[in-house]
Amino acid sequence: MLESEIKKAIHSSVSHPELREILEYAVLPAGKLFRPRLVEALALDLGKKFSQDHLHLACALELHHAYTLVHDDLPAMDNDLIRRGKPSTHAKYGEWKAVLAGDALLISSFEVLMKIQSEKIRELHRLFSWCTGGKGLILGQFLDLGSHGKVNTTEVIRIHELKTARLIQAAVAGAALLSQNKFSPDYFRLGREIGVTFQLLDDLNELTEEKLSPHEKDINPFLLNHPMAMKAFNRSYVNLKILMEKENLSHLNSMLNHYFEDNRRSLSAKSEVLTLHLQSDVLKDLKGFM
Amino acid sequence: MLESEIKKAIHSSVSHPELREILEYAVLPAGKLFRPRLVEALALDLGKKFSQDHLHLACALELHHAYTLVHDDLPAMDNDLIRRGKPSTHAKYGEWKAVLAGDALLISSFEVLMKIQSEKIRELHRLFSWCTGGKGLILGQFLDLGSHGKVNTTEVIRIHELKTARLIQAAVAGAALLSQNKFSPDYFRLGREIGVTFQLLDDLNELTEEKLSPHEKDINPFLLNHPMAMKAFNRSYVNLKILMEKENLSHLNSMLNHYFEDNRRSLSAKSEVLTLHLQSDVLKDLKGFM
Repeated sequence: MLESEIKKAIHSSVSHPELREILEYAVLPAGKLFRPRLVEALALDLGKKFSQDHLHLACALELHHAYTLVHDDLPAMDNDLIRRGKPSTHAKYGEWKAVLAGDALLISSFEVLMKIQSEKIRELHRLFSWCTGGKGLILGQFLDLGSHGKVNTTEVIRIHELKTARLIQAAVAGAALLSQNKFSPDYFRLGREIGVTFQLLDDLNELTEEKLSPHEKDINPFLLNHPMAMKAFNRSYVNLKILMEKENLSHLNSMLNHYFEDNRRSLSAKSEVLTLHLQSDVLKDLKGFM
Repeated sequence: MLESEIKKAIHSSVSHPELREILEYAVLPAGKLFRPRLVEALALDLGKKFSQDHLHLACALELHHAYTLVHDDLPAMDNDLIRRGKPSTHAKYGEWKAVLAGDALLISSFEVLMKIQSEKIRELHRLFSWCTGGKGLILGQFLDLGSHGKVNTTEVIRIHELKTARLIQAAVAGAALLSQNKFSPDYFRLGREIGVTFQLLDDLNELTEEKLSPHEKDINPFLLNHPMAMKAFNRSYVNLKILMEKENLSHLNSMLNHYFEDNRRSLSAKSEVLTLHLQSDVLKDLKGFM
């Protein structure tokens, strides 16, 4: 349902065949759809149904997420040639087309957001632009690229909060806002904990590769300061469990558990490589999680 | 007033000192403020006052315009090193910072737009995103960069319509929408004619330089097909005069006349160079305008 909604949104914002093709290439086939699935789970937990408004929010988040990836991958940014197992957008279509396709996706994310009929649209729009703009996701990208490898664990976690967690907060707090009477800081906090947990698990997964790039060695928080990164991970993970329990979010809990289960499996399977990189028995350090 | 509003908007969307500095550098000191001035003139013509809502619209348009310039100037796009008499944003701060500053300006334009309190905000948001997105301004940039100099006059004018006129249509039709009961196609049309006239005057002004770049020779509509470009210019100019008369827009008329007067002066002063490039007595061809 979500993929067809995304396709519909792209068709409605772009009619030129090649430009449309590039946007579709950048968004589909979809990745994990992590942010839309968060919206769906929360909609089911809080309102018993995944409404049309929730669908618009989910779609806006995925389009926005895709734009950030397209721009992040640019030669002047991370210069990534592969994304989701295929050439990144600029690698496939060239740089200027990737810049423009990213811009078009960004605008279309706001276009889709505005299809939400709820009278809370202004609050939602404010949340969305705050999370994604120069105080949120973009600041995260700015600090990330500006760090030139000279960054400590606290700073990496701050970057995770901005670059990864903010959009997840827009998903979680936005979905809650659509289902409830007013904005709840608990959901905003929950989004932060999910985002940081998610990103630190990603960092751990990077360390299951035998060969690490010099860049990875410079910025992986578990390599920079193992105890501090472990502590941050365990704290976020425990906090999100507590918050889910408190709000009785069973759909969210089950959605995240699937995701965590995948991570447990892959980390267990590679625990030797992890232990080698980190010079510590990682599964023991992660005992709250594993 | 507008410049301080822009500064306020940037301060409210960005707090990191360097990122904020880059956004300010890209927007201020302001250029001609052509789009905001259109909003102001129409607000005075149609509603007797430049309301807070009109001010937000004007500010959103200028922030958006600035983002398009920052991204247009990128090495992968037009690779322009100078903008408004100073180094372009990427020339001054580097490419990745320019990409991110452009993205941040884009988001902040939607943030400011949404400050508009009018109940017509949804219609206005739709107009704004349609004009700026993949069916509007971005499509214009896409066709422009994709043309590789192999472009005819009809195509150049289509690009002008998309890349230049759409944002001007958002200014004109948006300002009218805020002042009137409903969306009027006349104002949408008027914005198109102002945009095309504005851009073709720009093309003519390029030809007052003695030396032309090879790129300029490839895409200047007056060099490609002099009679057709003159006809398009004269038609747009006459149409905008008729539309202004019909709607009795005296502030707009006086604002545009100042601008046209400047152009008449500079074209007259360089009529010999123009005549040389175009192998035709340009002032005679422009008699309706001059």
